[in-house]
Amino acid sequence: MAGTGLAAAPLFSALSASAQAQQPVSPIGIGPFNVRAYGVSGVKAPFAPIQIQRRAVGPKDVLIDILYCGICHSDVHTVRGDWGSSTFPRVPGHEIVGRVVAVGNAVTKFRVGDIAGVGCMVDSCGECENCLADREQVCLKGTTFTYDAPDKVSGGVTYGGYSERVVVTEHFAIRIPPGMDLAATAPLLCAGVTTFSPMQHWRLQPGQRVGVIGLGGLGHVAVKLAAAHRADVTIFTTSPGKLADAQRLGAREAVLSTDQAAMARLASHFDLLISTVPYSFKMQPFMDLLKLDGTLVNVGLLLNLDGTELSGMSLGFGRKSVAGSMIGGIAETQEVIDYCAARNITADIELIRPEQITQAYERVVNKDVRYRFVIDFASSRQA
Amino acid sequence: MAGTGLAAAPLFSALSASAQAQQPVSPIGIGPFNVRAYGVSGVKAPFAPIQIQRRAVGPKDVLIDILYCGICHSDVHTVRGDWGSSTFPRVPGHEIVGRVVAVGNAVTKFRVGDIAGVGCMVDSCGECENCLADREQVCLKGTTFTYDAPDKVSGGVTYGGYSERVVVTEHFAIRIPPGMDLAATAPLLCAGVTTFSPMQHWRLQPGQRVGVIGLGGLGHVAVKLAAAHRADVTIFTTSPGKLADAQRLGAREAVLSTDQAAMARLASHFDLLISTVPYSFKMQPFMDLLKLDGTLVNVGLLLNLDGTELSGMSLGFGRKSVAGSMIGGIAETQEVIDYCAARNITADIELIRPEQITQAYERVVNKDVRYRFVIDFASSRQA
Repeated sequence: MAGTGLAAAPLFSALSASAQAQQPVSPIGIGPFNVRAYGVSGVKAPFAPIQIQRRAVGPKDVLIDILYCGICHSDVHTVRGDWGSSTFPRVPGHEIVGRVVAVGNAVTKFRVGDIAGVGCMVDSCGECENCLADREQVCLKGTTFTYDAPDKVSGGVTYGGYSERVVVTEHFAIRIPPGMDLAATAPLLCAGVTTFSPMQHWRLQPGQRVGVIGLGGLGHVAVKLAAAHRADVTIFTTSPGKLADAQRLGAREAVLSTDQAAMARLASHFDLLISTVPYSFKMQPFMDLLKLDGTLVNVGLLLNLDGTELSGMSLGFGRKSVAGSMIGGIAETQEVIDYCAARNITADIELIRPEQITQAYERVVNKDVRYRFVIDFASSRQA
Repeated sequence: MAGTGLAAAPLFSALSASAQAQQPVSPIGIGPFNVRAYGVSGVKAPFAPIQIQRRAVGPKDVLIDILYCGICHSDVHTVRGDWGSSTFPRVPGHEIVGRVVAVGNAVTKFRVGDIAGVGCMVDSCGECENCLADREQVCLKGTTFTYDAPDKVSGGVTYGGYSERVVVTEHFAIRIPPGMDLAATAPLLCAGVTTFSPMQHWRLQPGQRVGVIGLGGLGHVAVKLAAAHRADVTIFTTSPGKLADAQRLGAREAVLSTDQAAMARLASHFDLLISTVPYSFKMQPFMDLLKLDGTLVNVGLLLNLDGTELSGMSLGFGRKSVAGSMIGGIAETQEVIDYCAARNITADIELIRPEQITQAYERVVNKDVRYRFVIDFASSRQA
C-alpha cells in the first residue's frame, strides 16, 4: 500500500511546487522520489549537494519538509569513519525539525501543516519486548536509525536530515508544540533526550548535585535540563573559554577538569555525573568526585571505555557505578520536547547554510561552537 | 577508663584459667595482655605461632575467646603482599566466631557467655555521615579494619582472628543467634555480608535471574543467599569439577565461563550479576549476559578493573552498569546473620587446625577447597 492514500493539502502543494522547480522528483504518492541532500562520497570527503531517493509515502508515513537539522558529534564520527566503514554516499543528520506536507491515510498523529521532529531513529518492529517497553532504540529485531542504517522498508540504506525532505513512520515523528524556536529546538531531538533520559532513569532530585562532563552540544543542554530539575549543577570542561558561560546556562560553577585543586575540593561531592565526552577518557578522577552510591553515566561514548585505571577499591567501598545511556525511546523524546516547551528550554545554536557544513565540522572537532550548529534549510526553501 | 569495670563471670574465669596455663598473659582488666596468634613474619613466610598484644578491655569493649575463624581470600592477598606492603608480623582473619568471656561495664549488647561474631572491621568514629548511615566500612575518619590497620585505641596495628582472643568495641561485635553451627557460621561475617549487601541494595526480587561469577568462598554463599531470595540462580565457574555442586547449592545450573555456546545461549538473560572474582578479568563477555538496565557488581575486586575491552556502545544501548560493593555495615552484617539463622544457611566448610594454615593457603590459591577453610581454635582450647 506504499504511496497510496495521501491527504493532499494546499501547503504541501505550494511547497512541492517550489521543490520541483529545483530538482527532478517523482510525483509524491506514487513511488519513490528524489530529493536534494548534502552528503559525502567517502571518508573525509567534503560535503556536496547530491540527490537521494526517499521512499514512497506509505499509509502510516508522514512526509516532512525539513526546515532545520542540527549537527551532532555523532554525525562527525560517522562521516570520518570513527565507528567503522559503511556505504557511501552518506547523509547524516538526526536532529530534524520540519513541516508535515503529506500524510498517509492511516496517519492519526499529524495533520498537514503540523511541525514535526525526527531524532535518531525512524523505525523499529514495534512488537518486541523492548519496543513495547518504549525502548525502540534497542529493538530486538534491529532499530532503523535515521542515517547509515539498513532501511527495512526501502531495502536500501537510510539517509539523514541534511536534506530537504524525509519520509518517516508517524510513530517516529515527534510533535513539536506551538511557539518553540524551531531551529533551536532541533538539537533537543538528540542532545535533549540523550541527556534528559539518564536524569529520569537515575531520578535526579531537586537539590542533588550533578556534574556535567564536557560542555558541548550535549553538555550545554544537559546543564539546562539539570538546572530545570532544580539540581545543583557543576560543569567540567577542558576549554577555559567556556568557563564564563556556566551561570548563564544555569550551573553553579564551571571547573577545568585539569585543575587538580578544584577536583580535590569536589571529592565525594556529586550524586550523579553525566559525561557527554564522545571519546574514551580517564574516568577515575571523576569517580572520586562521586558520593557513596553515585553513578557516572556515559551518554556519548560508543567506543570502548578506557577502564584500565578504574579502581576496584573505589568502586567497591563507594558502591559506585559506571553506567551508560544512549538516546531514549520515542515516548521519552516526546517527553523531553514537551518538558522543554513548558520551560522555554532550547539549545544555544549557530545557524549555518548547507554550504557551510564542511567548515562547521572542522569547528566541531576544534570545539569552536557555542554550542550546536544547525543547518538552515528554511531560508533556501523560501528563497 | 580502659581496662576498668569488667563484669567477671564463672565462664570467663574457667576459660581464662585454661588460657593462662598455656601462655603468659597480663591480668585482664588491668592493662594490655598477650595472646597466642598465628602470623607471618614477612611476605610469603609460613604461618607460625606468635605472641601478640591485645588492648585492655575498655568500658564498651567485649573480650572474645575465639572458637573459629574463616580463611578469606583477602587474607591470602594481604599475606602475599598483593595489596601493597605493610607491617609485620601480620595476623589475618576477619571471619571470627567466639564466646564473650568479659565485658566492659558500659556494655549492653552482650553478656558473658554469649556467642559473638566479628567481621571485617572493629572500630569507626561512629559520628560521621557514613557511620550514622550504617556504613561504618567507609567511615570518613577511617574505618579500623580487623587486621593490618592502624588501631586508634592502642596506637599500634590491628591483628585478626587467627588468634585465641580478641578485644572489640561491642558495636562491632555481631550477635550470633542460638542453634547456629558456629564453625560454618564464621564465613558469613565476611562472605555472607559481602554477597548479601548487593542483593539488598540492587533489590533482588523473587524470580529474577542472577548470575554468580566465581564459585569459591564468596560465590557459594552468594548462591545460597540468592536462592533464599527465590531468585533463579546461575553459576559461572572456571572449574569443571565444581559444576556438579550447582543444584545442591540452590542454583539452576552451573556454566563454564569458557563455554562460548553456553555464554551465547545466556545473552541478555540476567537482571543482576555478582562477581566474586578477586582479580581483574574481562567483563564484557559477562556484560553481554545482562538484560537492559542490568548491573554487574564486583564484590571482591580491590585491584584495578580490566576495563580496556568494556564496550561503551553495549553499556549505553543496554543502559547497563558496572558497579562495586564492599562488605556491608554492622547493621547489615547483623541482618545477614539473622537472615541465615532463620533459613539454616551456613557456609560449606573444611575445618583445619591452626598448624595447617600455610597448607590451606596453597589450596585456596589452587582453588582446592569446598568452599571455605575455617580454623578450629575450639578443639585446641578444650584439649
